[in-house]
Amino acid sequence: MSKYIFGVDIGGTTVKMGFFDGEGSLLEKWEIPTRKEEDGSKILPDVAESIKGKMAEKQLAAGDIAGIGVGAPGPIDGDGVVHRAVNLGWGTFSIKETLENLLHIPVMAGNDANVAALGEMWKGGGQGSSDLIVVTLGTGVGGGIIIGGKVLTGAGGAGGEIGHIHVQDSEEQSCGCGNKGCLEQYASATGIKRLALKKLKESDKGSILRNGDVSAKTVFNGVKMKDELAMEVAEEFGKYLGDGLAVIASVINPETIVIGGGVSKAGEVLFDYIKPSYERNVFHANKDVKFALATLGNDAGIYGAAKLISDTMVSDIK
Amino acid sequence: MSKYIFGVDIGGTTVKMGFFDGEGSLLEKWEIPTRKEEDGSKILPDVAESIKGKMAEKQLAAGDIAGIGVGAPGPIDGDGVVHRAVNLGWGTFSIKETLENLLHIPVMAGNDANVAALGEMWKGGGQGSSDLIVVTLGTGVGGGIIIGGKVLTGAGGAGGEIGHIHVQDSEEQSCGCGNKGCLEQYASATGIKRLALKKLKESDKGSILRNGDVSAKTVFNGVKMKDELAMEVAEEFGKYLGDGLAVIASVINPETIVIGGGVSKAGEVLFDYIKPSYERNVFHANKDVKFALATLGNDAGIYGAAKLISDTMVSDIK
Repeated sequence: MSKYIFGVDIGGTTVKMGFFDGEGSLLEKWEIPTRKEEDGSKILPDVAESIKGKMAEKQLAAGDIAGIGVGAPGPIDGDGVVHRAVNLGWGTFSIKETLENLLHIPVMAGNDANVAALGEMWKGGGQGSSDLIVVTLGTGVGGGIIIGGKVLTGAGGAGGEIGHIHVQDSEEQSCGCGNKGCLEQYASATGIKRLALKKLKESDKGSILRNGDVSAKTVFNGVKMKDELAMEVAEEFGKYLGDGLAVIASVINPETIVIGGGVSKAGEVLFDYIKPSYERNVFHANKDVKFALATLGNDAGIYGAAKLISDTMVSDIK
Repeated sequence: MSKYIFGVDIGGTTVKMGFFDGEGSLLEKWEIPTRKEEDGSKILPDVAESIKGKMAEKQLAAGDIAGIGVGAPGPIDGDGVVHRAVNLGWGTFSIKETLENLLHIPVMAGNDANVAALGEMWKGGGQGSSDLIVVTLGTGVGGGIIIGGKVLTGAGGAGGEIGHIHVQDSEEQSCGCGNKGCLEQYASATGIKRLALKKLKESDKGSILRNGDVSAKTVFNGVKMKDELAMEVAEEFGKYLGDGLAVIASVINPETIVIGGGVSKAGEVLFDYIKPSYERNVFHANKDVKFALATLGNDAGIYGAAKLISDTMVSDIK
């Protein structure tokens, strides 16, 4: 019998949990609340309890489980040590050791955005490629770089911080990270809204954006209705993102670029705005890169977490 | 007895060859001319003859050699297949298979700039780090990205093209690659000279650069003599290179950034010009990256080529 895998995606509000078979089919998923009190010290015990409960329900012993993969916000190095996750109240400690001590099952851990990228490679929009850039356009801009099928973790666990590459010298507002001119300030849902509000203020043009909510969603709805002002906002968004992806691709030489997150619900139209500056500026070997939409939505994290275990099932876990 | 390694660095004019022991000590080095006639078809046979000659001289059999590492210009994938190397007249073929058929000794091959980066990690300015950005400021800007001790080859063998990241939208001159505004246009020896000539033309300032040759070397000599115009050129160079490295580091999260090539002979003063924009724009986790100068000079390629073999000596080569 092939062993089972748990994939755990720890977010600021809920912990998403997935129960997978050894081939990566998601058999069941559920959520528990993220209890952040007492410096987040209840989070991993809660995860352990929930896994124990599921194992009891399925009448499984520790030996039936290949491992537990965990994604969490913050820099997490290759040994499963998190180096401060402010969202959760966590300082520096080993997620791997803590959870292994609670469950006596092998654990692997990684940064949530990187792990979600791995999920999209395995079962989502990046299937079939092993060198990818995955960029997630949500409230912020997250991402993950996959090289030869493995997450680029970086020397200190901070690899793949696509949202904080510098793309604009003249920005006056600060990004959440403290710098000015980060990609996240233009390509996240929040950033697109900011660009739209600025343009509405500066321009006299009529626009359907003047008649209601301004958001990334209404901007791209406007684009589909050929609203001129919405299209200008989309062009600005696409220039920053296309430029940024061109720089990263020139260095990484990926096979596929996957775009996910809430903004990606706008669909293929995004590529119409990203590709022109991407293709103009990228090193020629990368002009024909495949662009794809993410397909796993909020499940990318649990899939990727399970993949951390799947990767190590054959040889590394004893 | 530990086996020996040959490291081969194929350039447009000469092929550099190194004879190493199994620990990576360079025992002997020499050069042969690169014969580019007949689509470069003589190059690998010449390399094979030279290696055979050295083996005869040392009374070594094929079984005494762990392998032959090769660096060559052009995209070379993980299987040792080169995908057009215009400098050498080469089309697409397997360097690995061709040379193995000539010598019956295991061969590994990689892009010359990437391989040189590996050399600097192993025995040069990047020793002790396994996540590095190595950037070579010569006639052009070359580079290599090392992740977990391995070269980032990329999906098509074009990884690490640091010289062709886009850093300037308003450039009117074309780069050798066909794009406009590549880092190479500002940070190579040629690029620095171009910046200096432009500044000399636009400015009325007196400068020692007006009294003789204008080159990257005379610019940085001027900087050391506090020549104001030379310092302005260095600032512009440093801004582009610092900005570019900040973007790459935000994605890679390296431990060390190594600067090599002819321009790096200017020494530590380079960092005074690169660091300000690097530190201003890089994601905070990377602000304390180590900057180092390359130390192997023109031998980086043969060292890195030997490292390709050293990496695979234990397990992969049978």
